[in-house]
This record gives sequence, C-alpha cells and structure tokens, in this order.
Amino acid sequence: MLCFNIYFDYENKNLENYAFRKLTEEKSSGAVGYYHLPDQIFQLINRAKEIPDDFEEIVVVGIGGSSLGTKALYRLLKSHYNSVKKIVFLENTDPIELKNKFLEINPEKSIFFIISKSGTTIETISIFKTLIKEFGFDLLKDKDKFVFVTDPSSPLENLALKYKIRFFNIPKNVGGRFSVFSAVGVVPLYLAGFDVLKIVNSAGAFFDSFFSGNEGHILKKAAFLYERSRCYRMNVLFSYSSLLDEFNKWYVQLWGESLGKIDKKGQRVGLTPIGLLGSIDQHSFLQLLIEGPKDKTVTFIKVKNFENSLKIPDISLPFLEKTDFVNGSSFNDLINAQCDATRESVVRSGIDVDEIVLHKLNEESVGELFAYYELLTSAVGALFEVNTYNQPGVELGKMILKTKFKH
Amino acid sequence: MLCFNIYFDYENKNLENYAFRKLTEEKSSGAVGYYHLPDQIFQLINRAKEIPDDFEEIVVVGIGGSSLGTKALYRLLKSHYNSVKKIVFLENTDPIELKNKFLEINPEKSIFFIISKSGTTIETISIFKTLIKEFGFDLLKDKDKFVFVTDPSSPLENLALKYKIRFFNIPKNVGGRFSVFSAVGVVPLYLAGFDVLKIVNSAGAFFDSFFSGNEGHILKKAAFLYERSRCYRMNVLFSYSSLLDEFNKWYVQLWGESLGKIDKKGQRVGLTPIGLLGSIDQHSFLQLLIEGPKDKTVTFIKVKNFENSLKIPDISLPFLEKTDFVNGSSFNDLINAQCDATRESVVRSGIDVDEIVLHKLNEESVGELFAYYELLTSAVGALFEVNTYNQPGVELGKMILKTKFKH
Repeated sequence: MLCFNIYFDYENKNLENYAFRKLTEEKSSGAVGYYHLPDQIFQLINRAKEIPDDFEEIVVVGIGGSSLGTKALYRLLKSHYNSVKKIVFLENTDPIELKNKFLEINPEKSIFFIISKSGTTIETISIFKTLIKEFGFDLLKDKDKFVFVTDPSSPLENLALKYKIRFFNIPKNVGGRFSVFSAVGVVPLYLAGFDVLKIVNSAGAFFDSFFSGNEGHILKKAAFLYERSRCYRMNVLFSYSSLLDEFNKWYVQLWGESLGKIDKKGQRVGLTPIGLLGSIDQHSFLQLLIEGPKDKTVTFIKVKNFENSLKIPDISLPFLEKTDFVNGSSFNDLINAQCDATRESVVRSGIDVDEIVLHKLNEESVGELFAYYELLTSAVGALFEVNTYNQPGVELGKMILKTKFKH
Repeated sequence: MLCFNIYFDYENKNLENYAFRKLTEEKSSGAVGYYHLPDQIFQLINRAKEIPDDFEEIVVVGIGGSSLGTKALYRLLKSHYNSVKKIVFLENTDPIELKNKFLEINPEKSIFFIISKSGTTIETISIFKTLIKEFGFDLLKDKDKFVFVTDPSSPLENLALKYKIRFFNIPKNVGGRFSVFSAVGVVPLYLAGFDVLKIVNSAGAFFDSFFSGNEGHILKKAAFLYERSRCYRMNVLFSYSSLLDEFNKWYVQLWGESLGKIDKKGQRVGLTPIGLLGSIDQHSFLQLLIEGPKDKTVTFIKVKNFENSLKIPDISLPFLEKTDFVNGSSFNDLINAQCDATRESVVRSGIDVDEIVLHKLNEESVGELFAYYELLTSAVGALFEVNTYNQPGVELGKMILKTKFKH
C-alpha cells in the first residue's frame, strides 16, 4: 500500500544484515513485545466488546506513549468515517487548557480511560483525582465509568482489582511509545467506532513482510542514518497533510526517546527528530533546509488521494492572473505538487531525501505507516547499540520533582 | 515584567558590542522597519476603528508570517478575556482540513481578512478564490466582507483599489515574520476585542529599553549562541504551557527562516529551532536532551501565575499513595515545579540552559516576549553576517511548482 522512494545512493550490506539479525533476535527471543501485538488483536477486541456501549464520548487520560499514538490514529482516520465517537484527550498539566477541557466533558455521557504503563504517572493520576473531585465520582458506585490500561501488577491494576474496575494490561515487554497496537490504542479507538482490526492487521502484515526479508529499504535507510549520524544529526519528517500533525508528534517521541541514549561505550548518541507540516512549513522552516547547514535528512510524506477534495475555482482576478496556473485543479493536486516541488528543491540544494507515499488515508496505509516507523526505529537503535526500549534519562527529573513538594 | 535567567557562563563584549551597533544602525537607518511598528500603533488602530462592527467572527486567510504571530497571540491571550470574537485561520492547502473549516464558517456573520505580503501567495489566493466560489461572493457587492493586508502597490492592493475593498499595508521594510505588530496582527486582533494597544506598547517599551542599553542579556545570549553554533546546532524552546504552542511555531519560523542562510563567504550557516511543550514533551523529547548528543541549547519558558488554576484534590487512592505528594497543590504549582525539576535535570546533564519567566499571561508580558525574540533573532543574524530579513531559498520551490501545472 505504501510506496517508499529513496533519493540517495547508499549501500552497506554488513550494517543491513546486522540490524536484520538483531531485530529477528529481539522478536524470536520475546525480549521485545511490540512485534507480537498483532497476534493478540482478536482477543483484545473480544474483551473490548464486553464493555457496555452506553456512552457517547470517550475521555482518554494519559500522556506520552499513553496518548500520542491514539491521538495520531484518531486525527488521521476520523474524517474517513461518516461518524465516530468523539475522543477527548487529557494529558498536559496546563491549568487553563485543563479547565477548558473539563468544561467540554459531559461526565454522564462519557467513559473514562486512565492509561499509565507504570500506573503512577504524576500527570495522569493527578488528572484522574481531579476528575473524581470535579465530577463527584464514587469509585465503588461509578466503577463502570472507568477503564484502566496499565502494566501487569502495577499500583493502578491493584486499585482496579480493589474496586472491580475493568482493566487491560500492556504487556511488560512493550514500551509505552511502542504500545499503540496494544490495549492503549486499540480499546478506545475500537469503542469510538474505528476499524482497529484492519489497522492492526495491516501493521502485522507489514511486520511479517519485513521479517520475511521483503522490506530491505528499511534496513538500507537505517544503515544510512546510522552511518551519517555525526553529520546528519536531525531527521525531518515533512508531512504534507494537516491530518499528520499528531502523527509527527508520535514520531518525535518514538525517534527521540528510543535513540537518544548513552551507548555501551559511555558516549551520548542519537538523532534529533523534527516534524514539519506542508505546505505551512514551506513558509517557516524551508529556508533553513535549503540554505542552512547540511546537518539534516528529510523524509517527505504524501497522501496521493484525499477523499472529496475541494477544487480551486476557475476564477481569474484582475492583477492576480499569475496565480491562475492552479485554477481548476483540486487542493489535492496542489498540496501534492507543492510536496514534489519542495522535495525537488531540497534535493537540488544537496540534502539527502526520501519519500513515503500513501495511496489513500485508510486503515491499511496508516497501519503500515506506524509499523514502518517502529521497525525503522528498532533498526537504527540496533546499529547504535543502545537499548531502544528504555528511557533512563527522565528519572532524575522525576526525583527532583518530589523534592519541590516536601513540606 | 519578564525575568531572564541565564544558567551558563559566557562573556564576549566585542561580539555584544558589534551586535548592538549593527541593530542600532538597522533601526536608525530605517533599513529594518519592525523596530518602528510600535510608533504607528495609534494610527493603525484609528483606521481599524473605521471598520463597521457588524460581524461575529473573523476569518484570517494567510500563511507563514501572515498568520503565525496572530495565531500565537490569539491562543495566548484568548482565555485572559471574558469574551473575544472567534478567529478562524485558513492557511494550509490540506483538502480535508480546509473542507472542515469551511463548514465551520458562517459567511453571513464573518469578516474575511486576506493577508499576503507579496499579494500573490499561492495558498492564500487559492483559498480566497475558493471562498468566493463556495460562499457565492461578488467582490463588487460584497466588498465590505473583505479586508486585505498587503505590501504597498502589490497586485492584491491593485485588486482592492479596483473593487474599493478596504486594505492595509505592511511597510516594505517589515518582513513577514517580523510583521505581527503591523496591520497583519493588529487589525484582526483589535476587531476580535483584544487590547492590542497594550500589547504593542509593551513591545515598544522593550525595544526602547534594549536600544537604551538595558537589555544586555539579549546580546550576551546572542553572542553565546553564535560562537557555539558549530557545536550547539539546535535551540530548543521548552514552553511550559499548552497556550504557548502557537508561539513556539512563530518562534520556529522567526529563528529558522531568519538565520538559515548562505553567508557572505558562501557558507551555509544557521541554527535549528525546536519547539517543545511541557510537561507533555518530558514524555517525548527529554530523554534525548539528557542522554543524546550535546548539540543543543535549551530555553525554558514558564508562566508563574496562571489565572484560576484547578487544584489537585486531597484524595489518597489505595496503592497510589506515592502520587500524593502533589495533593492539595494547584496544577499551576505542578507545571512550574515540573519545569524547574526538568531544567535542573537538564543542567546536571551538562546542557547550557536559560529561562524566561512570565509573571502572568497578559498583554504586557506577551508583548515583551515577542519583542525579546525579534531582537534576539536580529542580534544573532547580525553576528552571522547574514541578511536576517529575506528568504531567497524558498524561491526555487515556487518556480518548480509552476512547472507542475503546465498543460
């Protein structure tokens, strides 16, 4: 479904083979769980079906890996359906935004997902407590208003057991930022009315294709990014659709948090992810790409066929005739021509570029896109010889935070 | 009003003096116009007052510098007012987003700003034509539905003159990304009900303070960023409020497009801007900052006092007692403690950091914040010896775009 075009010349079969062996090992040893999530999708959906369908809206309380993937899928596919249930995301601790979002929620008509892998994420649990207070919930009486998603045996699971609140587990060997195809993303999206089975099956088919040796372009790109990481320190994702905005954020977490590590030799390694939106960022970041330091690679994402595109009418305005060359074209054609023109201008300025083309925005293409980036991240992580799946660097801040509240 | 804390040791008086002289020259010669925009605010508001107040919503059609600053101010200050008129921004050529936004607009109750410095921006004019078609406008009869903002003598100004459409000019010596305090930002925000006079006066006072030699911290930081630009290639703005999201985007354009240039010696120079939001991106980008390559500086932005913050209730949930240390605190306290804890952890990892503290989110602090970043950008640009105010690199893509539509 996706088409991958690489516009740079590079080959290093040793690195490619090494990465492929490492990922195959990660998968077959069971050390890394996300590769196996598609195998569990039927079971997960069957459990999701047991949840009574007596709500009109879904509230997801979660931050980072507990919300970014779900938000990305929601934004990408919402307009593909005639009607899906609204999902409200509560994530940031911003006092004003939080207050405004609380006003948006009708607690009678909503079901609340509390999603935290560790079970003790300070943002998530603080918002959860505030929900209880503001909406006057009683965990015993209102237990059916909640669904928890958390690690096995986490404090949040224990709370669920005590109050008989429905809960789902994230497998221990699945990191937060790789958890979109676990209960984290699957259950809320399924309840909202998305065809999650199609999405996850498509991701699963892509994993299978990769491990059968059919997606060599991933290894080639990973080897290239690894080998050039000292000069090309940043990887720009230039996504030509506003609907990819949340996907860019998911990518930023996946890439930054997975690869930014101290390696075995004690060296700080990693690559910096940057998400851009076309055509908007042609008017913002493009100048820097074209004339600034050659320290970036760029991946363009393009959607070939949007559904029901508006047309630019055949109106010629006096003095503005030089804009008439797009008259009669659709915005679909315009945004894609902008993507192609920008890509060509970036290539001409000497930047290494590749491109991902989605034929349409649908369950299959989007499932593949997520799977592609997960595999690419794992492959680059394997070459850096880092632990792609942990995030030890964020612990210090959490410890310092506690000292700020000691009375 | 703002407080600037610099956590790194650095001084180079020669560079500081050089930058100060260059900016003083830019201002006094009249070569660079944005320094003088606050002097024109009364006149501008007086002209804005002539626009009949017979609309309920404002639609701004513009992209890049024609919308980012206005969007940023709108998002930052909207909740500071009991009621302001809604502004809808039409910018991207994304077909689905555009269609959805068209459905949001009530053409009877709206006034439409068409904002393009050159007067021929392809996105803006294409959307303008589509508005005419979709809402059945007749430029002669409906001329009062439109306001144009454009360069003197641009094709768009000529169109306005022909149809007697109201228009405002952007001074020729004010670049798009420095135009927020021109008619571009001032007129729509004034009509929406914002106290633009306060905002712009505050920016003007900050410019005056700088040119009187009172804001040496800007020069110090500029000299530092310039001198370390080969190793610290990226400048992260870590903004601790969701309301700063659009401000981050304004910063990204200002920084990237102003500094990413080929310098006099033919070298590609510049610094890469990255906008982050706290606390969300603690769960996304922080790991890379702490353990990844030391190729970034980080500026934290913090709002000391949010209006009407929710409190985290004093609820202790079984098994989750370790999250109780924030009980009874406000989200205001939590987000600021998170900012402080993250800053300390980033400093400890050896990254050079500074911090901007807004006492409150109001017209004065926000006006200063914009003025600060404009001056900082100009100062760094002066040290790089580039033309901070043009964007020659984006022209090639525009030329290629035209070839895509030749029939």
